[in-house]
Amino acid sequence: MTQLSWIPTIPAVTEEARNAALDHQNQLTKPPGSLGVLERLSLQLAAATGEAKPFFEKKAVVVMAADHGVVAEGVSAFPAEVTPQMVLNFLHGGAAVNVLARAARADVFCVDVGVNAELTHPKLISRKVKHGTDNMAQGPAMTNEEAIAAVQAGIDTVSELAQQGYTMFATGEMGIGNTTASAAILCAMTGITPEAAVGRGTGIGDEQWKHKCNVVRRALEVNKPDPKDALDVLAKIGGLEIAGLVGVILGAASHGAPVVIDGFISTAAALLAASLAPEVKPYLIGSHLSEEQGHQSLLQQLELTAPLHMNMRLGEGTGAALMFQMIDAACLIMREMATFAEAGVSGKEEA
Amino acid sequence: MTQLSWIPTIPAVTEEARNAALDHQNQLTKPPGSLGVLERLSLQLAAATGEAKPFFEKKAVVVMAADHGVVAEGVSAFPAEVTPQMVLNFLHGGAAVNVLARAARADVFCVDVGVNAELTHPKLISRKVKHGTDNMAQGPAMTNEEAIAAVQAGIDTVSELAQQGYTMFATGEMGIGNTTASAAILCAMTGITPEAAVGRGTGIGDEQWKHKCNVVRRALEVNKPDPKDALDVLAKIGGLEIAGLVGVILGAASHGAPVVIDGFISTAAALLAASLAPEVKPYLIGSHLSEEQGHQSLLQQLELTAPLHMNMRLGEGTGAALMFQMIDAACLIMREMATFAEAGVSGKEEA
Repeated sequence: MTQLSWIPTIPAVTEEARNAALDHQNQLTKPPGSLGVLERLSLQLAAATGEAKPFFEKKAVVVMAADHGVVAEGVSAFPAEVTPQMVLNFLHGGAAVNVLARAARADVFCVDVGVNAELTHPKLISRKVKHGTDNMAQGPAMTNEEAIAAVQAGIDTVSELAQQGYTMFATGEMGIGNTTASAAILCAMTGITPEAAVGRGTGIGDEQWKHKCNVVRRALEVNKPDPKDALDVLAKIGGLEIAGLVGVILGAASHGAPVVIDGFISTAAALLAASLAPEVKPYLIGSHLSEEQGHQSLLQQLELTAPLHMNMRLGEGTGAALMFQMIDAACLIMREMATFAEAGVSGKEEA
Repeated sequence: MTQLSWIPTIPAVTEEARNAALDHQNQLTKPPGSLGVLERLSLQLAAATGEAKPFFEKKAVVVMAADHGVVAEGVSAFPAEVTPQMVLNFLHGGAAVNVLARAARADVFCVDVGVNAELTHPKLISRKVKHGTDNMAQGPAMTNEEAIAAVQAGIDTVSELAQQGYTMFATGEMGIGNTTASAAILCAMTGITPEAAVGRGTGIGDEQWKHKCNVVRRALEVNKPDPKDALDVLAKIGGLEIAGLVGVILGAASHGAPVVIDGFISTAAALLAASLAPEVKPYLIGSHLSEEQGHQSLLQQLELTAPLHMNMRLGEGTGAALMFQMIDAACLIMREMATFAEAGVSGKEEA
């Protein structure tokens, strides 16, 4: 695939910093490998940043918000008006992601990339491409141009934050109906059935779940998205906030910044981003394993692990915000732990 | 079983505070249940403390250290001298548990309950019962009196910390050889084979693993511990630091304080504590799922979940220290998140 002009250049990660990190790790007072995920994270972060012992003082959760025309089909337990209401909740600092980001000493930024309401707030980043997607059960959710504009909103947001000194990002989202779009993306990209991809979202019952599966099936039949063309998939059955997240992921990687992927919707965006630009993969960090049934399939496609098994299914970036704390811990291990020599501790005996 | 005189009285948890917490939780701006483990933790913490929205300002990781006579059988990848060396590392703040406790704004306390060396340090809590256990492959590791004395060391340590204002505890340990003792406890208490219980500890190869299984089998045959008598199991095939952790768990619960259980060794101690005093169970919080193969079996016995899948196998309390951050997050959700009414967000639609 030729490089698309709207996709930013993504730097290669550096094996030299990774090796320097590994050398240091092997000197620390613990059996090799015994800190598991924390050790693997340290190596990945070193490779991404080019520093053996990086630390991320300024971390941002970027919450992309937009509405979904497919909500007209009755796929969600909550009404569409909740999208703008929750955007204001994010801006006032009262949502779960705000609380969990504060706990991780991270900041939340909320971007209106396609909310179906007029929103004004001094903290809102307004990048509205359109007032929600069209109903994908009846035709394409967006045009290619609209999808690219929404991706660009994510790229631009991250570029501005990078200029402000943010060096690590997490993906968050709000959009009533967006588990339906994400399930459709999972089906289109992997060929699995709607019944294997569709989950309970914010909490629908059995009958509504069957209906949601049928809506996804119809969206796939009507639009026939091409799995070899991630932009086609994104535009036809995606969402404006999902496109925004594709931009956040591409943008973060283009700045050499690791990006923590939240749950089901964010991982669907990551799958599209990695299809558009496989060079993003070394910058992706999994976080929590969502209760949403399709999440594991998405993670497997990306070969990502999700170490936090918190039974969460809220989105917003909540799982990624929790993961920030694990990442800080991994960084501090590299910076603060004593070496065998410093502590006068004997190493492993020869077998 | 009649109450043993050395086991402290453990208060019952309060359903009233749990219900008050649940009422508040259902008002928060999220679909009910969507924060999974964080929500379940909030309810457990409310029930344990009697407060609907508790927060734990002072948290302690209590690291119990002791040596194991069974190391003479060649069961560990590291020499026994590492136990006192690592105790000094804890006291100097350079071990992994120190780093991870600092990240969680918690303090580490190290107790010498049976290290086979003379240790003096202003920060060391000296409660040495004996200079390491006897070799359980040849006879009992301890007498019942020694085991009770080590349990008492844990109870007393927690009582002193509770007087200093600590309201949440985590279990940590150091003792070369203690995965062997813990595997033996698992076998004795559940009847599973050494091959299903024994893991790689700090990193032994295949041959040494087979040998370790045989050593556990011999310890069980020589001592015939009675699974209905947890003190008998603890004394014959346990460890001084494992007994100390039994005391930490009993002591924490007796003060109405939640206690976060680290990995394989700590969970073996929790199984014994819960056998001695089933009333401790509502105070136990699982943390990480260890790479040590017997850990899942121990957790299942206790009906505990371990949300952190970090592939760790270090002990020291490292997984419990990471879990402190998830617990803080659960508490902050209850204290800081907006309600539907406060945020003007619509609730779930009627199905």
